[in-house]
Formats: sequence, C-alpha cells, structure tokens
Amino acid sequence: MSEKRTEISEIGEFGLIDHLNQSIKIKHQSTIKGIGDDAAVIDIENERVLVVTTDLLLEGVHFDLTYAPLTHVGFKAVAVNISDVAAMNAIPKQITVSIALSNRFSVEAVDALYAGINAAAEHYGVDVVGGDTTSSRSGLVISVTALGEVSKDRLAYRSGAKENDIICVSGDLGGAFIGLQILEREKQVYLSNPGMQPELDKYQIVTGRQIRPEARMDIVYELKDFNVVPTSMMDISDGLASELFHISKASKVGVTIYEDKLPIDKQTFDTAVELGLDPITCVLNGGEDYELLFTIDQKDFKKLEKHPDIHFIGHVTKPEGGKNLVTKSGTVVQLKAQGWQHF
Amino acid sequence: MSEKRTEISEIGEFGLIDHLNQSIKIKHQSTIKGIGDDAAVIDIENERVLVVTTDLLLEGVHFDLTYAPLTHVGFKAVAVNISDVAAMNAIPKQITVSIALSNRFSVEAVDALYAGINAAAEHYGVDVVGGDTTSSRSGLVISVTALGEVSKDRLAYRSGAKENDIICVSGDLGGAFIGLQILEREKQVYLSNPGMQPELDKYQIVTGRQIRPEARMDIVYELKDFNVVPTSMMDISDGLASELFHISKASKVGVTIYEDKLPIDKQTFDTAVELGLDPITCVLNGGEDYELLFTIDQKDFKKLEKHPDIHFIGHVTKPEGGKNLVTKSGTVVQLKAQGWQHF
Repeated sequence: MSEKRTEISEIGEFGLIDHLNQSIKIKHQSTIKGIGDDAAVIDIENERVLVVTTDLLLEGVHFDLTYAPLTHVGFKAVAVNISDVAAMNAIPKQITVSIALSNRFSVEAVDALYAGINAAAEHYGVDVVGGDTTSSRSGLVISVTALGEVSKDRLAYRSGAKENDIICVSGDLGGAFIGLQILEREKQVYLSNPGMQPELDKYQIVTGRQIRPEARMDIVYELKDFNVVPTSMMDISDGLASELFHISKASKVGVTIYEDKLPIDKQTFDTAVELGLDPITCVLNGGEDYELLFTIDQKDFKKLEKHPDIHFIGHVTKPEGGKNLVTKSGTVVQLKAQGWQHF
Repeated sequence: MSEKRTEISEIGEFGLIDHLNQSIKIKHQSTIKGIGDDAAVIDIENERVLVVTTDLLLEGVHFDLTYAPLTHVGFKAVAVNISDVAAMNAIPKQITVSIALSNRFSVEAVDALYAGINAAAEHYGVDVVGGDTTSSRSGLVISVTALGEVSKDRLAYRSGAKENDIICVSGDLGGAFIGLQILEREKQVYLSNPGMQPELDKYQIVTGRQIRPEARMDIVYELKDFNVVPTSMMDISDGLASELFHISKASKVGVTIYEDKLPIDKQTFDTAVELGLDPITCVLNGGEDYELLFTIDQKDFKKLEKHPDIHFIGHVTKPEGGKNLVTKSGTVVQLKAQGWQHF
C-alpha cells in the first residue's frame, strides 16, 4: 500500500466505482456487457443472453431490524435484485442467497428471513440455486445474485436513449424515502419512550414502500405484450434525478422532465408536507422506489398511452440540451443528481 | 416469529443449511442442479451448462487483516470461488465482486484489495462483470459469485462415485490449517510485544497456503487433456474427512482411505509436530486447502498414474462399508467429519 491516504468520501461512491472499474479488462467474447449497467450480460446462444446482477445488504446500513421484520428483509433482498433484472427487460430465473449471521439470531429468526426469501422466489418465479451460510461478528449480511434471460432483441441497456424519445416511469416515486423518514421518527419516539406505541397506521403505503418494495416485473411482461422494447431502461434505486444522470451519461443525450408529470402518491405528498419536506425533492432524490425508468421511441407511445401505471414525464434531447426540470410555473431548472451518500 | 428459540449452534452450520434447503422448490427446467453441490448447474443449450457459485467472506471470520495483506485477501476471495467452479470440472468465465467497506479503508486500501481481485481474474482468465460497492459499519465484507461453463458430459457432481472407484486428491493437505496456527501464534506474540518481528521466514509454504490459496484449475485442464471425467468431485474447503462425508452421502457409497497414502508437505508435517499437533489430524480436518478431491473409474487409473500431483488415497466401497481410515499399522478406524464450526 502506498503512503498516500485518500478518503473514500473525497471521491464518493460513484467515484470509487468508476475508479475501480478502470482497472477491469474484459477477456471473453461471451461477456457482452460487464460492469456499468443494472446487470451484466453474457451470451449463451445465438438468440438469448443471460443477465447477472448482485446486491450486498448489511444490517444497520440497508435495513434496520428495529422496524423491518426479517421476513420483509428477506423479501426485499430478493426484490431489489429482481428489479435489476427487470431493468434489463429480462426474465429472472435463478438466484443465489448468501447470509452471514451472528449468534444473536436463532433458527426461528433465520426461518423468518427465509420465509421472505422463499415468498419472493415464489412471487417472481425464480429458483434459489445456491448460496453460502456463515457466521458474522456483528449484524446480518445478505448477498443475493440473480440470473435472468432475455432475447438479444429485447435487451434494454441504459445506453440506447435517443433524441425525441419519451421518458417514462412506472408507479409513483418518493414513497420509500418518506416511509423511511416515518419509520426513523417512530423509532426515535420508541427509543426515548418504549411505552409508546408507534403511530404507523396512517402511513401504511409509504412504510410498505420502504419495508417491502415490489420489483416491477409486471411492467416487463406488459412491455412484451404490447410489443414495446424500451430504448433504454434502469430501475430507480438511488432516486429519479440520479438515474436520469446515468441514462444521460450512458446514452450521451440530454433529458427534460416536467414537474407536473411526476407521479406522486397522495399519502407520499401529504406525509412529505407533514414532515416539512418538499414533495418534488422527495420524488427526484428519494431512493429505493424500485420503479422502472425507461425511454421509448415516439412510435410506441400509442401502445402505452392508456396504461394506468406508466407515466410520461418528459423527453430526450440533444446532449447540449442538458438535464432539466420544467417547473409548474414554466421555469427551467437544472437537475442535480444527489443519489445516496453511503460513505 | 414463533416464541421458540433454537440456537443455531444446536443444529450446526450443516444442520442449518439442510434445514433451510428443505423449504426450497425448483421451478425451472433449466435449473439442472440447485443447492447441494459446489455450484448450481443451469442449462444453457443442448451441450453446455452454466455453473454458478458464490461465497461470502467477512473480516474477523474468514480473514484477519492483521496478517493477511488486502491484495492477498482479494486474490483469495476470487480463488475460493474459482475452486468451486473447478470442483464441477467447469471452466470459469465471469465473476461479480461486491464489497462493503467502513471508512477505516482508504481509496489506496481498496486499490490494494482490487489489485488482488484483478490479479486473480487475470490468473484464472475470468471477466469481472459486476458487483456492488457499499458502506459497512464494521469490517470489510466481500461477496464473490463465479460463473463457469462445461459440456454436460464433463460435469462432475458429488453424487457420481461408485463402488471400486479410486479416490484421488490433488496437491497436499493440512498446510492452510497449519499456516493459520502459525499466523495466529505470531499475531499473539506481536500483540503482547509490538517490538518483536514475527518469525515467518521458515513457515512460508504453510502461511502461503493460508493467505494466498490456489484454485486447482490446472488439474481441471489436465483431466481434460487426459480424457478423464471424474465420477465425482469437490474441493477441499472444510477438510478432507468432511468432504469425504459429502461424497459418501451424495453418492450413497462407503469410502476407505489409507493413512500412508495421504499427501502432506514436509513443512506442514514438521510444523505440526513443532506445534504439538498430529499431522494426520491436520490433513483430515484442516480446512481451506482448496485442493480437489475426486473419484475416477479404475479404467482411468493408468492415464493419471504418473501425474506428479495427483495422489490415490483410497477407494469407494458399498455404502455398508462405512467411512474408514486404514492406519499405517493396519488398524481400521472410522472417519469423523469435523468441518468448521463457524457458529
């Protein structure tokens, strides 16, 4: 090791990833796409490819067992990987699940975790084909790898968006972030007064978005039914603005989105206001929604126009157009990618 | 969660894995083999299959940065997965690498880790195609998933051993375990007197076996050259005796091995004696050798007979023959599977 010490916080998570990826060279022709998208793409025969994605979840960083039941943690660990497979427009087939546990966990606790993992495997139609079980000195660690398949002509990278494409998102945004704020607030109330019952009933939608997110495989199947291949796609895990930056960078295009088109659930909106947060900031920068962000060619608009859960939030421009939000009042403001600051 | 609390230590690691695996059902025809071997097997076309394996490594459990340089930790994290691919008689092609880091680590430290990961990827000819980078509240966590390919007629499960097959191991055994004892001893000396220089020069072979193990891909390539398909194969990560139990259980056979045939390096032997340990116990129960244990049909013996690094340690018997070690004095003793007690 050299004597120089650069803090990871100086370059940030994305900086670190870029930095590490520079050292990686691809050797196999079958490796069609390595690092840099939601999943890697591996050639398996003439018509089909395999996509591979993996996520590492740590207690205290990605989930808090004070308010997330183990069954939901297990479900979410699978769902976030399925979401990456969906983001390639692929069909998930197999997963591996590795867990590290401290002796704080009993066999019944592990069963609760696996009940969630197996429920998700059932829900998304994937086989659990392997994994590793080991001990941990601190909290629970879960690592999931998902494999999926897609024909080459349906594969959706981040890099295919082109000028005049329509920018779409599924579902609504900001809910998981608002849910997290509520759960954290109630946790603090509980910690300072354990006799208090947390008030969660009126926040079920947003806390549900945080604790038990859903991967939008339904959208992947429907796009196929409608015979639409997105020109680019990714899932929204770090926040809409951050993901638009990824699409813009990978596709070498500009993006313009419209505030009045951004989908937000009423409970998300009301709770944001209650918490003194700007709802649109939550929609743009709240993470973990696991909705799909994608672009379509204008010719495909008619096919999806009436879909109740796909929202057309803007359009793709020339790269020099930049990354813009048009507010309700018609003002054009530059988007900022916040993403999550893990470090 | 039910009110019953069963400690994981009551059922042990293998008990926990069996317990969890009972709840898993396979849905896809393409999933040829799920949990229960060194890697999962997925059908990709008529002649070839994909194998998938994953390992989760935690600081303080699987490696100790007091004596294992980060570069070696990175190399080992890849090598142990490649070893599982080798154990299926498959050729590794792609890996994903996820890491969780606390702010104790600098960018330079991460570079050192990745230097090892990339060196291993180069050495074994695999592409690094994805991963996840996140923060950790405690130590370093590394999760690697490896994908490999093999034609169906060369695939080697744990379950194919049959009566009269010859039991083979590559390399020599017990070294990694002895290396760990030396490293732990020198760590204690150092902790009680930081001015002392650790005495490691004379233990380089055994400490090397522990810190920077080698996956035996060379044996996989040579078996192909010699046109030998093992009837069963696995890698020795938990100790020879434990792995023989796996082969015996999966193949429904008995095994008899001979003490005088067990391969042990001179430095391993001498150091075991120096440490007051029985060398044969180290060979049988020491883990992390990452050598290959396999069985061959008698007809293939001539092809491998002269191989300098393959040792013929016993033979496969009827299941009622049990699992036996014949000592140098001719006494027959029952093998005990110790494995690693993580919990």
